[in-house]
Amino acid sequence: MPDRIYNFSPGPATLPQEVLAQAAKDIVNFHDKGIGLIEMSHRSKEFMAVVDETEALLRRLMDIPDNYKVLFLQGGASTQFAMIPMNLLGPGRKASYLNTGTWAKKAIKEANIVAEAHVAYSSEESTFDHVPKTDDFTVDPDSEYLYLVSNNTIYGTQFADFPQSDKMLVCDMSSDILSRRFDIRPFGLVFAGAQKNMGPAGVTVVIIRDDLLDRAPDNLPTMLRYKTHADKGSMFNTPPCFAIYVVGQVCKWLEKIGGVAAMEEKNREKAAILYDMIDATDFYKGHARPDSRSLMNVTFNLPSPELEAEFISQATKEGLDGLKGHRSIGGCRASIYNAFPRQGVLDLVAFMKKFEQAHR
Amino acid sequence: MPDRIYNFSPGPATLPQEVLAQAAKDIVNFHDKGIGLIEMSHRSKEFMAVVDETEALLRRLMDIPDNYKVLFLQGGASTQFAMIPMNLLGPGRKASYLNTGTWAKKAIKEANIVAEAHVAYSSEESTFDHVPKTDDFTVDPDSEYLYLVSNNTIYGTQFADFPQSDKMLVCDMSSDILSRRFDIRPFGLVFAGAQKNMGPAGVTVVIIRDDLLDRAPDNLPTMLRYKTHADKGSMFNTPPCFAIYVVGQVCKWLEKIGGVAAMEEKNREKAAILYDMIDATDFYKGHARPDSRSLMNVTFNLPSPELEAEFISQATKEGLDGLKGHRSIGGCRASIYNAFPRQGVLDLVAFMKKFEQAHR
Repeated sequence: MPDRIYNFSPGPATLPQEVLAQAAKDIVNFHDKGIGLIEMSHRSKEFMAVVDETEALLRRLMDIPDNYKVLFLQGGASTQFAMIPMNLLGPGRKASYLNTGTWAKKAIKEANIVAEAHVAYSSEESTFDHVPKTDDFTVDPDSEYLYLVSNNTIYGTQFADFPQSDKMLVCDMSSDILSRRFDIRPFGLVFAGAQKNMGPAGVTVVIIRDDLLDRAPDNLPTMLRYKTHADKGSMFNTPPCFAIYVVGQVCKWLEKIGGVAAMEEKNREKAAILYDMIDATDFYKGHARPDSRSLMNVTFNLPSPELEAEFISQATKEGLDGLKGHRSIGGCRASIYNAFPRQGVLDLVAFMKKFEQAHR
Repeated sequence: MPDRIYNFSPGPATLPQEVLAQAAKDIVNFHDKGIGLIEMSHRSKEFMAVVDETEALLRRLMDIPDNYKVLFLQGGASTQFAMIPMNLLGPGRKASYLNTGTWAKKAIKEANIVAEAHVAYSSEESTFDHVPKTDDFTVDPDSEYLYLVSNNTIYGTQFADFPQSDKMLVCDMSSDILSRRFDIRPFGLVFAGAQKNMGPAGVTVVIIRDDLLDRAPDNLPTMLRYKTHADKGSMFNTPPCFAIYVVGQVCKWLEKIGGVAAMEEKNREKAAILYDMIDATDFYKGHARPDSRSLMNVTFNLPSPELEAEFISQATKEGLDGLKGHRSIGGCRASIYNAFPRQGVLDLVAFMKKFEQAHR
């Protein structure tokens, strides 16, 4: 086993080594203060500074305007599937949803529990191999928002451009936040579990336009109201301190290497290396339609499930780990988030060539 | 500043140094597998083993019978304040609550949003300086459960014995779980945020009797249903992996030093040292009534707020940190959870003597 494997896991996923090293140090003795990071009161000035800095970094990196709140919540994206309609809709109100994969479907299910979700588009019939263009669907005029998943981890599809709509957008960016530039102004709410591009599992970043905070019905429990957390700077109760800290460290690393624009360039290059390999042969076949290909999750098949199993097994032995596709579609998937190194992509391509020669 | 301060913070709080050291190692390279703990897929066999082991340790340490599920959830105790009535009550049903402090009051508020909370007892008029005995209150006969907070962090009170009731008990043990032996069988549900006695902030342990899992109304969002998490072994969505891992490490440490019985003995001794100091003088005055004193949070006052400020400031300079009382009652508070070392209590008592001599 090499000192460090290449981890193609879809999440939790590869983090920058310097972030891990810093976290290891701070866990035992934070800034040499004689106390470990995970022992510190969340209301200590040292930890409050961590939260403030993490928010400031996210605001700079994503160019978030002042009329948006940045919240650090718990419960993962799955909890947001419910909190969004609980806060923004409620009984008798509706929103439009683009059904582009498993996570969109789950969000639709939760919206229908507390309100009404209108499915404006679905790519389910073609095994979610693409995302729609703006002209491909019509948003219900009574919708409060248009909901979409920017990157579909399981199927390896991604919106290259966001849809145009007169409704505000609400977006699950769990698997591509901070990976490319975008203008947040058409969005009422953007959220992302941290465990792919931002940090460890355990914190969900919610960015919400402040005029939406007062929409929640009176009978919503306190912890499920965005306003509760916005009013207290994510400190209404004890936040997931360690996960927030790591998000801050990842943001620092990202800023240091040139921010989101530089990251996007690297991500485009990494993905191109892999897709070029797939397109150069008919041994490997991409799952996503070329116009919907994800820069984060590259999904592909081999000529048979047996060869796929052999491919994954051999790759693991060579230190290329986590290439098994999601159980719902099988095949292979290489998740190459922000912190995944270019060299790992080159090594995977070299392995793919070798494997093809041996097995075609 | 000494290498390591004594951290009297009420939570997040002191953790065993060997746990911090192991976490620091595993974060960078988990079990020398070439991948960091917080980068590993939650569905990898390595991480699944962490969850399984953590659950098994909790079951052994707390002697939890097979008909209880152990869940690792997010959102803190504050989310449980809502999830409990959402799952166990619902509109038109009621439960009895013992109002022994801030956290009980918050739980009562949430219960009244979705159902009805009957306050069977309140010690609010005497600034929550005590908890009731079984004979001090009557449980509403239509109650589904009797809710209590076993240890009140802010006021420094604790149930020495749990109330007897023909209703099942539901208990917030956030600040004293694993600190003393108790029989879980009268309890339908026990929960605790990890960040005092068990680990870092970011995970809440919920122990629920399995016949209660089917009580939730149909229109409850998926993530808010206990059954969702019970059916999937807390893996319905990505769990807070790092926090669960640390809970496991803390449980291992606890088992190694003799389990909950040995821990309880140490805790009783630590608390006695402090209360003996308080009782030996009228310079320091305990907030809690002696029959309700907490073994975890020792609350006390000095003759004036000015002296209290001076006491806290000088103590901090001597490496005795986090002694400021909660803003709602002021004064001083020494939180001495499981991992807080006996030597720190001895040092505090020595400081208290010195401070009294200089200022009385």
